[in-house]
Amino acid sequence: MAKICSQSENFSRWYLDLVKEADLIDYAPVKGCMIFKPYAYKIWELIKEDLDQRIKNLGVDNAYFPMLIPESFIIKEKEHLEGFAPELLTATRVGQKKLEEDYVLRPTSETIIYDAYSRWIESYRDLPLKMNQWANVFRWELKTKPFLRTSEFLWQEGHTVHKDNEDAAKMVEDALNMYYEFQKEILAIDPISGKKSPAETFPGADYTYTLEVLAKDKKTIQSCTSHNLGQSFAEAFNISFTDEDEKIKTPYLTSWGMTTRIIGTLIMAHGDDKGLCLPPKIAPYQVVIIPILNKKDDEKVLEKTKEIEQILKEQNIRYKTDLSDKRPGFKFAEWELKGVPVRLELGARDLENNSCVLCLRKNSEKINIKITDLKEEIPKIFVKIHQLMLDDYQNFLKENIIEVETKEEAEKIIKEKGGFVKVNWCLEKECEESFKSLSTAKCACIPLKQEKVKGKCFNCGKEAKVKALFAKSY
Amino acid sequence: MAKICSQSENFSRWYLDLVKEADLIDYAPVKGCMIFKPYAYKIWELIKEDLDQRIKNLGVDNAYFPMLIPESFIIKEKEHLEGFAPELLTATRVGQKKLEEDYVLRPTSETIIYDAYSRWIESYRDLPLKMNQWANVFRWELKTKPFLRTSEFLWQEGHTVHKDNEDAAKMVEDALNMYYEFQKEILAIDPISGKKSPAETFPGADYTYTLEVLAKDKKTIQSCTSHNLGQSFAEAFNISFTDEDEKIKTPYLTSWGMTTRIIGTLIMAHGDDKGLCLPPKIAPYQVVIIPILNKKDDEKVLEKTKEIEQILKEQNIRYKTDLSDKRPGFKFAEWELKGVPVRLELGARDLENNSCVLCLRKNSEKINIKITDLKEEIPKIFVKIHQLMLDDYQNFLKENIIEVETKEEAEKIIKEKGGFVKVNWCLEKECEESFKSLSTAKCACIPLKQEKVKGKCFNCGKEAKVKALFAKSY
Repeated sequence: MAKICSQSENFSRWYLDLVKEADLIDYAPVKGCMIFKPYAYKIWELIKEDLDQRIKNLGVDNAYFPMLIPESFIIKEKEHLEGFAPELLTATRVGQKKLEEDYVLRPTSETIIYDAYSRWIESYRDLPLKMNQWANVFRWELKTKPFLRTSEFLWQEGHTVHKDNEDAAKMVEDALNMYYEFQKEILAIDPISGKKSPAETFPGADYTYTLEVLAKDKKTIQSCTSHNLGQSFAEAFNISFTDEDEKIKTPYLTSWGMTTRIIGTLIMAHGDDKGLCLPPKIAPYQVVIIPILNKKDDEKVLEKTKEIEQILKEQNIRYKTDLSDKRPGFKFAEWELKGVPVRLELGARDLENNSCVLCLRKNSEKINIKITDLKEEIPKIFVKIHQLMLDDYQNFLKENIIEVETKEEAEKIIKEKGGFVKVNWCLEKECEESFKSLSTAKCACIPLKQEKVKGKCFNCGKEAKVKALFAKSY
Repeated sequence: MAKICSQSENFSRWYLDLVKEADLIDYAPVKGCMIFKPYAYKIWELIKEDLDQRIKNLGVDNAYFPMLIPESFIIKEKEHLEGFAPELLTATRVGQKKLEEDYVLRPTSETIIYDAYSRWIESYRDLPLKMNQWANVFRWELKTKPFLRTSEFLWQEGHTVHKDNEDAAKMVEDALNMYYEFQKEILAIDPISGKKSPAETFPGADYTYTLEVLAKDKKTIQSCTSHNLGQSFAEAFNISFTDEDEKIKTPYLTSWGMTTRIIGTLIMAHGDDKGLCLPPKIAPYQVVIIPILNKKDDEKVLEKTKEIEQILKEQNIRYKTDLSDKRPGFKFAEWELKGVPVRLELGARDLENNSCVLCLRKNSEKINIKITDLKEEIPKIFVKIHQLMLDDYQNFLKENIIEVETKEEAEKIIKEKGGFVKVNWCLEKECEESFKSLSTAKCACIPLKQEKVKGKCFNCGKEAKVKALFAKSY
């Protein structure tokens, strides 16, 4: 039977065991790349389906731009280039012939998309322009980890153009709120909305918003970002428009994205020693039916199983019936490892009462239920599971944000307890760097909900400008 | 106003005008690559959504494999390598550093997927193994045409493994039938199912099935393919399984795919001098509402428009209301160019009767209709339009398959009339090549529905083995 290490023993090994044993991934013979096996890919499909609708609801159209970016484009925005240069994978030949121009495999598509926008945008009537694409991207990373950091990953990237900064700033917020609602409503995660520190801002952006999620090992994961790019890319790519007053102006751009990293985030936020624990809304199978067979009455049990399948099908519930010849205990452990929210057990003794037993992955609760009640009860049970998962996440988060005043206190918390330390900060780069070399913790974000800041910077003692969260991060 | 060339004047220019003016694509500053603008991408999304469900209905799971293929993999299957070598785009460096191994950008994924299959397959219990992926692929083409032949394109590729050839052969047929039903039911195209000649078979396959679609200029388009790969790839990648009899055996593989080429196929099969003509099932907008405003009663017209929108929304009909300040005639032409199946006109004079006018893109038929009847009638009208389009396609096809006995007759038909010539053929490569140099026509396919073959090869006069269709092709 598949075995995974416990979280407390070695969290990193727990994670690597889980992604293999739950049949989510396989490693590929390509440095830092992985194969999304069907179980993981189905989670991604369910995520995509929901998020795609939310993106469309923001008035954004999907499109598709070439994956190859002429190298000359990448160098147009200086900060952007500096941020990505060492990770850029580059195609230089076709067959045995050298290409006329080298092409970078997109690390992100600002440059190729904004080149097109410069041709498409003429007047204020063309604004706002809002497009999104679902695509694969490449960043040649030195240290990789399945889902969280891989050389190739999948994502969506939204790219919008606005006539003024106010409109762009609103878009950046709308995108962040969309991700927040998605993560809360679909993934049962309540992330922290914040602004990245200048050191962690997207190369070329004015500022970057993030949603930070706390993993079970108390390190933070940046689960998505939303950037206000200001006018720098518009200037680099000559995007301009004639405004109503007939003046030629430079627009304001935004970009925002969520990647397959979200699957790693989900695993680390909800997983436990039994394995994956999936919220019902993105579980490939929401219910696994396990008929308990013992020869006597098997035919009747299987007949009743068909009846249950029919009920689930009519409710559009994603289910799987496990008829393999493994022992029930083995099957239970296997489907727990794969995080299926509800196990439905049905044995000969349940037949008399026309009932079955539901067992919830999240809290191991067992529920005896009449088969005639399944139709009505299962959707309610999904809602309950989602809420249980969200409550647990929120409690865990609350316990792991500790407010402190000095760097010594902050360092102690980071080293001994983990999680977020909440500190007063002057916003100076030097303070972030000095605390990082002390503790290995960076600024996770400056929460958007700011309390009134009074007091001194936790690191340098000068006047503080913001309350910030510092944590070790993925 | 956007103008496109007529088909009879210059079909190729008509096509290139159309894809630009209907706002389907833009050219990218990357050789042979194009941008899928939202209108085209939405067509692709609708195609994907339908086809994906059909693929899943065949018991195939979606997964995702790395885009980068170690160069050493590509050379494992000799014919495969020879078929693709000159088109292979290759990444050789990251930043300014040379990679340890060069990576080919996938031209198709047999090699990287079968390497994984060799690790995953152990016993007959693992078979059949059926996976599919939706991905971007790269073939560095010398001559390109939007959708039909581009250096990067989007597709799905199915890859299955079977314990015997019979099962593999059935899969190859099932995939072809799936594509056939999709094209007929969704695209209103009735393609010819056939086998490719040996010269046109996929590099490394035992045989290749195709669906051939006749474009309005009477050239044929290979709209998808399904390959029986036999055992060659399994041997090259060391895929084997322990069968029930405990013997170690080599399985049989298949692969099959449909690409964004299908959008070009759709345009060329149904388009006319007014532009694109879309079947309702994949039209981004199925209905365009054009309120005819003339100041008097404008408010009432707009109020009624809202009422109509509500009716369409409730029926899940994809609609767009054009409230731009262009003249109605201009709007009519613009939406005809974009191929919207139904135009709904509503003016002040329609208010008294609580009616509106529907105009069908396919045949310009005008229908006066009570607004209270829209709910019931519009779905019927979509069915009717689909049937009209299919009938037209079938009639066009029937008129353009001419059976002849000699190469002289065949050449005359190809040169003067175009379309398919149906001939007796001995299946020898030399005959295909010699007729090609005479007429520029290749063997489009050997139709799966074979009549009894009697007679001599149209080219060499030896005994014929099959009835084959020859045509000029894209």
